[in-house]
Amino acid sequence: MKAFTKLLTPQEARDVFARAYSPVPVGAERLSLAHSLRRVLAQEVRASSDLPAFDRSTVDGYAVRSVDTGRASSGTPAHLQVAGEVFMGEPVQFAIGAGQAARIPTGGMLPEGADAVVMQEHVVRTGGAVSVERPARARDNVVSRGADITSGEVIIRPGRRLRPQDLGLLAGLDVPEVMVYRRPRVAIIVTGDELVPPGRPLRGSQIHDMNTYTLSGLIDEAGGVANAYGIVPDNLALLVERAKLAHRECEMLILVGGSSVGEKDVVADAIAALGAPGIVVHGISIRPGKPTILAVAGGKPVFGLPGNVVSAMVIFDQFVRPVLQAMAGVGEPPRPGQTVLARLTRKVATGDREDHIRVSLIERTGAVWAAPLPGGSAIITSMVRADGLVTIPANATLDEGAEVEVRLLP
Amino acid sequence: MKAFTKLLTPQEARDVFARAYSPVPVGAERLSLAHSLRRVLAQEVRASSDLPAFDRSTVDGYAVRSVDTGRASSGTPAHLQVAGEVFMGEPVQFAIGAGQAARIPTGGMLPEGADAVVMQEHVVRTGGAVSVERPARARDNVVSRGADITSGEVIIRPGRRLRPQDLGLLAGLDVPEVMVYRRPRVAIIVTGDELVPPGRPLRGSQIHDMNTYTLSGLIDEAGGVANAYGIVPDNLALLVERAKLAHRECEMLILVGGSSVGEKDVVADAIAALGAPGIVVHGISIRPGKPTILAVAGGKPVFGLPGNVVSAMVIFDQFVRPVLQAMAGVGEPPRPGQTVLARLTRKVATGDREDHIRVSLIERTGAVWAAPLPGGSAIITSMVRADGLVTIPANATLDEGAEVEVRLLP
Repeated sequence: MKAFTKLLTPQEARDVFARAYSPVPVGAERLSLAHSLRRVLAQEVRASSDLPAFDRSTVDGYAVRSVDTGRASSGTPAHLQVAGEVFMGEPVQFAIGAGQAARIPTGGMLPEGADAVVMQEHVVRTGGAVSVERPARARDNVVSRGADITSGEVIIRPGRRLRPQDLGLLAGLDVPEVMVYRRPRVAIIVTGDELVPPGRPLRGSQIHDMNTYTLSGLIDEAGGVANAYGIVPDNLALLVERAKLAHRECEMLILVGGSSVGEKDVVADAIAALGAPGIVVHGISIRPGKPTILAVAGGKPVFGLPGNVVSAMVIFDQFVRPVLQAMAGVGEPPRPGQTVLARLTRKVATGDREDHIRVSLIERTGAVWAAPLPGGSAIITSMVRADGLVTIPANATLDEGAEVEVRLLP
Repeated sequence: MKAFTKLLTPQEARDVFARAYSPVPVGAERLSLAHSLRRVLAQEVRASSDLPAFDRSTVDGYAVRSVDTGRASSGTPAHLQVAGEVFMGEPVQFAIGAGQAARIPTGGMLPEGADAVVMQEHVVRTGGAVSVERPARARDNVVSRGADITSGEVIIRPGRRLRPQDLGLLAGLDVPEVMVYRRPRVAIIVTGDELVPPGRPLRGSQIHDMNTYTLSGLIDEAGGVANAYGIVPDNLALLVERAKLAHRECEMLILVGGSSVGEKDVVADAIAALGAPGIVVHGISIRPGKPTILAVAGGKPVFGLPGNVVSAMVIFDQFVRPVLQAMAGVGEPPRPGQTVLARLTRKVATGDREDHIRVSLIERTGAVWAAPLPGGSAIITSMVRADGLVTIPANATLDEGAEVEVRLLP
């Protein structure tokens, strides 16, 4: 298979791929709350009760009828009979009548008849009575039933990555288990006669495989489960066999390396063997990452990423992550803090490809500056030192000091 | 135990606690790279070899001696004999002499004698020779040995949370396993006669426990392992027994609820029973979270957090997380994107306590606005709706439009 007759722009490539494949969540599973942190909610959760379920005191003190304290002052305190005591967790078996009060702890349930709580520091207790020296207004020191959530209200919508506070709210509303989207299984197959896993000595001009590790991490952080299918030499039959196995077992395939047009580049042929419609994009006008393949086979997305480790990370960021997150059910708007505005520390010019440069951020004279990092697409330290990525359009010149949007690395 | 005679400011509380306890990492363990994502590196890693380990081609083409092409042009191309072919991963058994070239793939090792690569699109091959129509400069299309990392260089320092690209670099340098800090075990004990775990029906004025879930999530995200010791009623003997068990098994203890000064508040007494020096701070001039306990027992930090779920989260953020991260070995400067500057959508005034308000962020007319969320310390939805927290100093009034720093929630 020959390609690169015409390079698509990144946006054209996205459009072509979107016509061939529309990501949908791969399924859902029921999990206990304790295992749901960072998982993506797959159901709408409605409150089956009010939260709080009853009027609660926010202080230690005495539940009162505010009307009884309306004229209280230090000169003419209101004298109230203590009708009972509220205990945490227990039913409150009595009501407050005119001229009565009840001892109540923080969080305790207000007895019927009471509409306010006076802090214990503001009363004087004498035997079975208390005197109150200032007026209480209705709802003083009370959290009303339903103030947090009212019954029937939608609490959390599907597509949300659950945070600690979301788990707390679900617990408070007696939701011990939730349906969350299953994490898509993503196969990684790296190809290349020269590759050896770390821990094995090199011979000849071999090198150690990095892409399995960077991509596994990126897949995990995007909400997928990385399944590494190891290193395959540049042999079409072996690669097709491994790719077919991975294609059966996983919901997304990533093949790395060999998608250029060299004689031994077998990735494109292996992808073509997986089924229709096959390769829909081969070659994108992006830097780094030109020899990228976007494909669909048997309803599953298949990506051919360049073997250079920085290129593979940039293409993951631009083309793989959005698809993977949609398959993982993520349906939230981007949260603040994922991008920052910064000024370039030096002029940057591009040729005929959109460039994705690595930058480190520097705070200087009250402003944030983005310093482009040296090193081409084979230089992993440019990613290790980077705080983020900046997209520079094709055929553009941005001067020193130009404002750019930096996509922070996770 | 009576307290609250004098409230410390948050900074005073931090100082007092820091004199009683200096956090150190709890230990380290050896893990394979595949399990090290987000773990904190416990060792300095030095490169044992150059990366790349040899001069590599960045393109498919022909390795040449640049001097041989110095006068090449389309009119007078340089004719070079093809001395051999470089294969990925294999040793290169030949050298390039004057007037010679060698076929080389992307990533291939340069043969001895060659100092540049000409792209295959720029040569014409005829039998055993190629003609080159433009001069190649030394190092053209070559990544030099050691360009990424040189042998002996420190690659990554201890204290770093490993990112995907860090794992890639370690793999590339043949580091299949690393020492990472062990994640501190943090005990959570919630107290209160009124508490029931989610999934069990409520009776009387019981409520469902939220704090176990919010705190477990916060501990996980800060790099600890949460060990939930369940719900203990307001009974000193039972609480002391459970706390002693947790104190033996874990490296940090969090007790929740009951640290106010009500009659049935047994948390302070239980903490005091764990050992010397015991409680060093009881009551902090912070809102929410006043009835906070900071303690040390047998060399382990112990926290008594308020039972209100928002208070507990704020106190975790202010006092627990920094200690836990230090025990987890985290030693990086804060990354960009953890805070954003925003303008208040409305005036905010505080009393005599430092206030930690919940805000949602709104992008409007090119600026970011922070909208304070309604709801007191018992209102979990104020955290669920929040994008971040803002610290408002005690006795301060900030006008609408005032610029504040928002700490983004994880």
